Amino acid sequence: MTWDEARRGLYRQLEPTARPNGLSRLNLALVGLIIVAVFSAILETEPAISGGRELMFDKLELAIGITFLVEYVARLWIAVENPKFAKSRFPRLRYALTPIAIIDLLAVLPTLFAFGGGSSLLLRFFRVLRMLRLAKLGRSSQAWDHIRNAAYEKRYEFGLILGLLVVTILVSSSLMYWAEADAQPDKFGSIPRALWWSIITLTTVGYGDVYPVTMLGRVLAAFLAVMGVCLIALPTGLFAASFTEAMDKHREELARKKERKD
Amino acid sequence: MTWDEARRGLYRQLEPTARPNGLSRLNLALVGLIIVAVFSAILETEPAISGGRELMFDKLELAIGITFLVEYVARLWIAVENPKFAKSRFPRLRYALTPIAIIDLLAVLPTLFAFGGGSSLLLRFFRVLRMLRLAKLGRSSQAWDHIRNAAYEKRYEFGLILGLLVVTILVSSSLMYWAEADAQPDKFGSIPRALWWSIITLTTVGYGDVYPVTMLGRVLAAFLAVMGVCLIALPTGLFAASFTEAMDKHREELARKKERKD
Amino acid sequence: MTWDEARRGLYRQLEPTARPNGLSRLNLALVGLIIVAVFSAILETEPAISGGRELMFDKLELAIGITFLVEYVARLWIAVENPKFAKSRFPRLRYALTPIAIIDLLAVLPTLFAFGGGSSLLLRFFRVLRMLRLAKLGRSSQAWDHIRNAAYEKRYEFGLILGLLVVTILVSSSLMYWAEADAQPDKFGSIPRALWWSIITLTTVGYGDVYPVTMLGRVLAAFLAVMGVCLIALPTGLFAASFTEAMDKHREELARKKERKD
Amino acid sequence: MTWDEARRGLYRQLEPTARPNGLSRLNLALVGLIIVAVFSAILETEPAISGGRELMFDKLELAIGITFLVEYVARLWIAVENPKFAKSRFPRLRYALTPIAIIDLLAVLPTLFAFGGGSSLLLRFFRVLRMLRLAKLGRSSQAWDHIRNAAYEKRYEFGLILGLLVVTILVSSSLMYWAEADAQPDKFGSIPRALWWSIITLTTVGYGDVYPVTMLGRVLAAFLAVMGVCLIALPTGLFAASFTEAMDKHREELARKKERKD
Repeated sequence: MTWDEARRGLYRQLEPTARPNGLSRLNLALVGLIIVAVFSAILETEPAISGGRELMFDKLELAIGITFLVEYVARLWIAVENPKFAKSRFPRLRYALTPIAIIDLLAVLPTLFAFGGGSSLLLRFFRVLRMLRLAKLGRSSQAWDHIRNAAYEKRYEFGLILGLLVVTILVSSSLMYWAEADAQPDKFGSIPRALWWSIITLTTVGYGDVYPVTMLGRVLAAFLAVMGVCLIALPTGLFAASFTEAMDKHREELARKKERKD
Repeated sequence: MTWDEARRGLYRQLEPTARPNGLSRLNLALVGLIIVAVFSAILETEPAISGGRELMFDKLELAIGITFLVEYVARLWIAVENPKFAKSRFPRLRYALTPIAIIDLLAVLPTLFAFGGGSSLLLRFFRVLRMLRLAKLGRSSQAWDHIRNAAYEKRYEFGLILGLLVVTILVSSSLMYWAEADAQPDKFGSIPRALWWSIITLTTVGYGDVYPVTMLGRVLAAFLAVMGVCLIALPTGLFAASFTEAMDKHREELARKKERKD
Repeated sequence: MTWDEARRGLYRQLEPTARPNGLSRLNLALVGLIIVAVFSAILETEPAISGGRELMFDKLELAIGITFLVEYVARLWIAVENPKFAKSRFPRLRYALTPIAIIDLLAVLPTLFAFGGGSSLLLRFFRVLRMLRLAKLGRSSQAWDHIRNAAYEKRYEFGLILGLLVVTILVSSSLMYWAEADAQPDKFGSIPRALWWSIITLTTVGYGDVYPVTMLGRVLAAFLAVMGVCLIALPTGLFAASFTEAMDKHREELARKKERKD
Repeated sequence: MTWDEARRGLYRQLEPTARPNGLSRLNLALVGLIIVAVFSAILETEPAISGGRELMFDKLELAIGITFLVEYVARLWIAVENPKFAKSRFPRLRYALTPIAIIDLLAVLPTLFAFGGGSSLLLRFFRVLRMLRLAKLGRSSQAWDHIRNAAYEKRYEFGLILGLLVVTILVSSSLMYWAEADAQPDKFGSIPRALWWSIITLTTVGYGDVYPVTMLGRVLAAFLAVMGVCLIALPTGLFAASFTEAMDKHREELARKKERKD
């Protein structure tokens, strides 16, 4: 077996778009490894679980990091087989600059830095960065396309609602600042501080750590709650409708493709 | 009356599918008994109600358990009359392995174990197991079919959203762990601990037992709340649409059946 | 003017269905009086407002009560003019037994009892009973018909969901009782006590007075919250769809009526 | 260049409807200034940001106020060029009485009063009044028209639901006042006080500062929560549907316009 044949064979194994039906065994194994990596990253943060097993978690992290590094280099090597980059003068560089390749590179980095120690906020940052490995799943799924299409279809509506939402939140915060700043200066003493109340109330989460206590504040809050609740539910309804539409289109396309085959 | 005639008569009384219109009196009585059994199981847990009446509740539980046992044996006996199992070599065994027959068996068990005493967690487990008797109602209702069809119709969408939901919750928890672990180590000290905050916030329940206190945590929480609320509302909208569709189909079918008769 | 002519004239003034377009001046005045009566009943309960003005509120209540009594007697008197009751042998009795006539009678009662004093719970009961006068508005509005039609159209679906809701709430309460009874006996010590948690969580209100503290309880609560939130939103979506449909039908009918006229 | 030519040139720059495609550079700069003004107004209220920089914020506010004053006078000057007011005898007065011109005037006022000092509530009022400058954005956007059309299309439904909402909130408050007034006189001691509970519960915000503690109160609250949640979600569904319809119409119109051009 020549190098070229090996590269072509590996390309067929690693590149999901090279196989029309389902994932190859190698890709399924990589999906499994991503899930293991994410669960290990989650469990390592809990002292009740990782306490006394630091070495085991470190070894696992190292093994995962090396595997992902090998995968990254392999994908770089086979990039020349991809018809998408075949016409380019530097197919490997072109591939290395695609979003999914950058994500692959970022997924290797935490392993290198995690052993460097440093401040607790920075250490946690690298631990959390490992969760980015979830994004590697994007290669093996068409799901992201459906979601993106549904959002893109209604981009004008979403922009409009986002603008309205920002205005509503700013106006709510200003009014509550006006009404409550004297009574609760630490919670409503400025408009930026009142923003926390606005968002937690308008999403109906309502933790109860911040709420109006004056008569004026309560009357304003009551009106804002009813109006704002109505507004924040708008994008939900729109997105649900758009998502259903996008999925129906996808089904029709699949049906048409099948028909053409028969 | 021979045994065979008795068996056939009992079959017509006990098997809901043997009668096209409504439930037989015997089945109605069993539905009533299920409701009595569930309410008795609920009320027995409240000391203010069951205190001093333990013997009465024990006797009622025993009577219910014996009746359900008799029902189970009777259904086993008449299984040979059911055309669904008629071709099988062991019709009674085939019936005994259907989900509804297993539920019937499980509904008898709590009576046997409830008098065994034991630890409070185990005792409560058998008490809660009695609530399983609600599942016996499934035999007398077509409702479950409609719900299941509605869910099945959109299984791909639900799978997609479930995946997105898991990713959103994991990413939320990771980011909040990063931001808040120093300020509130008991509540956000690890990603698994931050999961509780994520779920209670994204469902907009917002008890207020856990909420961010740092500036970074609040800014992240505000973004996650707005985005997550939108996402978690998606399955609701989809399921409502799918359920309405399933019910409309059911109505059309009923109308068509009626037409054919006339 | 004879008595008969007076009765016919009053009938045209008081009965909304006797005039095709809009309400008569007398009925508009009665609507105004109902709103005054309700606001007076609300304000009287607040000591900061009614303190020192008890006599004024008592006089207003007496005036309102007498006016509603006169209205009730007048409507009884003109009932014989109503074609709906014309064929009956006792038209006034038939009218007196209609729901709206019973509401009219009940709206007079609080005035009689309010001055009787008694325990604070009973006194408050008669004060709250005055709010029933809002139901008198039902005569002057077609709104109630639309709402009722929308609900009736989907009665089977609502029944199904109601059943599912009851089962979900009972099962949630049972599971949380199992998990949390040892840790929080006063809040989860029995299934009836856990019901409060179930309803406040599944509606996503989430006051924060009751929440799970054990690991098992939190895992269960997280699952129940996600599932239950989805379920409780179902009737909302259905009713919104049904209500829109009912209103569209109403508009089409109005348009058809207008066309026929032209 | 004569005065008339200058006025015509300025009109083309300042009036958005005078240019079919997009905003002029001058209008874009004004939009930018509005955003700067709003952010400066928000940040000035936070002592941690504005502390020690009062003079800077005062100068910025003065510069913004003078620019908006110049803009107001300029728009008044060019009003005679607007064909809408051309036939009027006093075109400038007619323009000065349009809502957007009044908003422009109000957006200048806070600058004049902000330096006057006075009570903290009044000072905050002028600070909050600056947020009104957001409304100046209305001139540069067609968004408001879409929202208004969507709301207008279903005005009858919204009126109906608003009435139902008011009745539900009043009845909820009355019932909770009846049940809880003895146990929590400061929170449920009168119907107006119970209103706060009603609104915060029915919108599912649920801060947790007010909740029932008696058995009767909890049973009532559970029923009201389930029913009310269903009702308050109605306008959301309706408005989402109406908004989508309005946007679809807008798209069709744009498409038809384009077709006619080609």
